[in-house]
Amino acid sequence: MADQWQEAYDFAVQVARAAGAVIRKAGEEEIKVQTKSSTVDLVTKTDERVEKIIIGSLKEQFGEGTHCFIGEESVSKEEPCILTDKPTWIIDPVDGTTNFVHGFPFVAVSIAFAVNKELEFGVVYSCMEDKMYKARKGQGAFCDDEPIQVSDVKDIHKSIIISEHGTDRSPEKVQKIFSTMKKILCIPVHGLRGSGTAATNMCLVACGAVEAFFEIGIHCWDIAAGAVIVREAGGLLLDVDGGPFDLMSRRMVSGNNRVIANRIIKEIEIFDSVRDDAPIAKK
Amino acid sequence: MADQWQEAYDFAVQVARAAGAVIRKAGEEEIKVQTKSSTVDLVTKTDERVEKIIIGSLKEQFGEGTHCFIGEESVSKEEPCILTDKPTWIIDPVDGTTNFVHGFPFVAVSIAFAVNKELEFGVVYSCMEDKMYKARKGQGAFCDDEPIQVSDVKDIHKSIIISEHGTDRSPEKVQKIFSTMKKILCIPVHGLRGSGTAATNMCLVACGAVEAFFEIGIHCWDIAAGAVIVREAGGLLLDVDGGPFDLMSRRMVSGNNRVIANRIIKEIEIFDSVRDDAPIAKK
Repeated sequence: MADQWQEAYDFAVQVARAAGAVIRKAGEEEIKVQTKSSTVDLVTKTDERVEKIIIGSLKEQFGEGTHCFIGEESVSKEEPCILTDKPTWIIDPVDGTTNFVHGFPFVAVSIAFAVNKELEFGVVYSCMEDKMYKARKGQGAFCDDEPIQVSDVKDIHKSIIISEHGTDRSPEKVQKIFSTMKKILCIPVHGLRGSGTAATNMCLVACGAVEAFFEIGIHCWDIAAGAVIVREAGGLLLDVDGGPFDLMSRRMVSGNNRVIANRIIKEIEIFDSVRDDAPIAKK
Repeated sequence: MADQWQEAYDFAVQVARAAGAVIRKAGEEEIKVQTKSSTVDLVTKTDERVEKIIIGSLKEQFGEGTHCFIGEESVSKEEPCILTDKPTWIIDPVDGTTNFVHGFPFVAVSIAFAVNKELEFGVVYSCMEDKMYKARKGQGAFCDDEPIQVSDVKDIHKSIIISEHGTDRSPEKVQKIFSTMKKILCIPVHGLRGSGTAATNMCLVACGAVEAFFEIGIHCWDIAAGAVIVREAGGLLLDVDGGPFDLMSRRMVSGNNRVIANRIIKEIEIFDSVRDDAPIAKK
């Protein structure tokens, strides 16, 4: 039974690559933007089209009904977002929609697979860079089939830390985000970065380009695939308060090691975010 | 006389590509870091080696003595940094040294050429992405030989703005940098980004991926080549106070148009920086 999900894993890599090709092509054509919740949270026809392609392919391959699907576009149409014990695909068709709309070169397809609420594998295809990141539980992490591992830096002063400003512009959140970033910069660290996509940010941790990435407000589909990739590359995931990582909590620190992660956690000013699995009425 | 500098332009592209190949190769080997002014301002053997390769090639091609050279590594050894009327090469061998040391995927070779204090051409080779940006005065801007142009966005709310935290961690500067970024984010704009290299940031303006890039504290060698590329792509350069751009002032806004640039300028909190052409004693 060790290879029970190997076919699904291989298929996910194929589907991610095909979806990335559709995104790249769409990027060359005119991008029609429609407003989602605000001018800073964009969704394009491409997101919806690519999610349909991905979910359609997976349903065709693995049979409708036996597998569950959690996807960014489905959820925003108010389908429930509950992780059960069933085999479940967690999908972000276009992570980094703002980047995509602008032609900023980080856009990722993120596909993860969980069984019994545990992540089995994750695939992140950074389609503008044409880099395929993937990892399966217990089998290591790879970029374009080369093994990758997290940085071995333990000195926070020699680190680069990634975070994002998010799409919520409420004053309290923005204040806490900037205050946290400022304190971390002044530890001091080598620098702060942000690619504009959580999935890519996690791959940058996994391949050792940065030491840690933290964010409050991300969704499970942004980070599920990256979570497997970071762990299999030797890194770890924690809650922003230092407790255990919870995929549905919308809070996460992914780090190369606990020394770096703990130092970052000391500076994070936490703000509220509604869980991904909260009843729809609360959202 | 229109094509007086065509040979120099073509040669600069060749030299930038060769230098970029050296950087990519060095990135695969062990990177030996030496401290420059602080732990956040890194310089590697590669910077010095690549600058010697670039300046050596240019001197061999164009004759020692007739052309002047301003380069990041030369200047830090306290050679003067004065732009005269003579043909002058302005060079950053590795823009984004921190990125380079960490393996973060934005590192650029920046080569500009000025005559009578006016920029004639600029070449920026983003060597990890393998993208060659170039522009010659009056002849348009190109990425990998395809014409590029700035974004046509005039609505600030639909813009992405780039800036950097820099390497100076003095409290007053850090405070002003974060305060400015926060005000710009909350205009609101679609997002803030930063690649970690000024040369690449300017190319992101030139190809329309972002609407504007501003920074205080950059040096002439970080932005001279990018300045030509932005202008030839249809963009403009200004001082952070809205006045004329001054290459030696260490302050710059590069924007897709004046509407966007002016809106950003309204929010910038200016702090002091010593000019690149100030007497050495002041530095």
